[in-house]
Amino acid sequence: MKILITAGGTTESIDTVRGITNFATGSLGKLTAEEFLTHGHHVILLAGRFAQLPVEQENLTIIPIGDTQDLLDNIEKFLPSVDVVVHSMAVSDYRPVYMTGLDDLPQPLSKEQLIHFRPKVQKKISSKSEYQMMLLEKTPKVISFIKKWKPEVLLFGFKLLSGVSEEHLLEVAQSKRKEASADFIIANDLTNIQGENHLAFLVSDSTDITRLRTKPQIAQEIVKKSEEVHHG
Amino acid sequence: MKILITAGGTTESIDTVRGITNFATGSLGKLTAEEFLTHGHHVILLAGRFAQLPVEQENLTIIPIGDTQDLLDNIEKFLPSVDVVVHSMAVSDYRPVYMTGLDDLPQPLSKEQLIHFRPKVQKKISSKSEYQMMLLEKTPKVISFIKKWKPEVLLFGFKLLSGVSEEHLLEVAQSKRKEASADFIIANDLTNIQGENHLAFLVSDSTDITRLRTKPQIAQEIVKKSEEVHHG
Repeated sequence: MKILITAGGTTESIDTVRGITNFATGSLGKLTAEEFLTHGHHVILLAGRFAQLPVEQENLTIIPIGDTQDLLDNIEKFLPSVDVVVHSMAVSDYRPVYMTGLDDLPQPLSKEQLIHFRPKVQKKISSKSEYQMMLLEKTPKVISFIKKWKPEVLLFGFKLLSGVSEEHLLEVAQSKRKEASADFIIANDLTNIQGENHLAFLVSDSTDITRLRTKPQIAQEIVKKSEEVHHG
Repeated sequence: MKILITAGGTTESIDTVRGITNFATGSLGKLTAEEFLTHGHHVILLAGRFAQLPVEQENLTIIPIGDTQDLLDNIEKFLPSVDVVVHSMAVSDYRPVYMTGLDDLPQPLSKEQLIHFRPKVQKKISSKSEYQMMLLEKTPKVISFIKKWKPEVLLFGFKLLSGVSEEHLLEVAQSKRKEASADFIIANDLTNIQGENHLAFLVSDSTDITRLRTKPQIAQEIVKKSEEVHHG
């Protein structure tokens, strides 16, 4: 099989020297890539700026990814040739539209003015004012494009929450699965991730929920499910 | 001699999974550390999250740095024991105070309301609204503390601008040098940095300006000046 894995985090530029980034290390994406490679499959890994990477090897192609648009462009490019997508990358929910000193904003300010205001273009934001304001806009929901572009691909998505009940986490994961037409969602909670210990739930269209306890277990389960669907 | 080098970029958290970071690679700080080590000096390297690091070796201590406050705390801790400070770290000029959906803000909005508003605490910012607004405040000017805490230390600072004239760059560097009571400022322009090619000017209290053309040249000049002052 040929597998497309996204891992690490996207980085959205604020100016030429600064950006908003996710702290995702890409360690689970790396493990999953290695597990697929061990089983003889081909892997294309779309990796964020600071993602951990498997060692270079046959059957592995690594593509560095910058911002959300860059990720979307590369998914569109590689999707036609793959059988499985494991979308584990932490995508920025928002990207900067502008950043400005408060004194440059009109006063008083309406919501519409905030949205439509644009400061003069700066290559590097000057650091004169005591405060700055940044407007951010929602990024495109990357996962929702995958099944639209290729309905027959097997799609694994992830849902990460922080400090919620198991019941709530599973509900949110199930509704994300339906929204994105994903085959599986791996649901996890930041407070249950510490090093190799990584509690996660594999949610599918059945009522069975597989409980996984470590990163290697998660990686192995993804490979097992992919092989079942494609060979079983 | 004992040298304190700061390198890479600071990262200011937005929430538990996101932060604002500088793209600085720390490559010049790494080279400078290696040059001092080659000359038999001791180096303490305060390194940002994604900074390039020299290989582990005798006489080198590496301390990982998170945000601006963390950097300040560590400079204060190590400063008493060092003779030279090379402050090459790209410090965030601003750090997030809060991030909120536009609908949660009072309307219309004054500058004072923007500054004093605080949204309900969230561990991970929810991604429901189409737009978010972030208020950022100035971080403490790290370089200005160094000579206040230890007037006799030899201090190298950096000034990075983007796309300005040589004359303007040198003026800004000179005024930064005076403001921070630094002995030297290495002035450079983003548009003149490409890989090893790195045009920079060493500005001091004399009218002589040393022009440097590569990262290794900059590192060598910093070590040379340090040795001149301390042994010459």
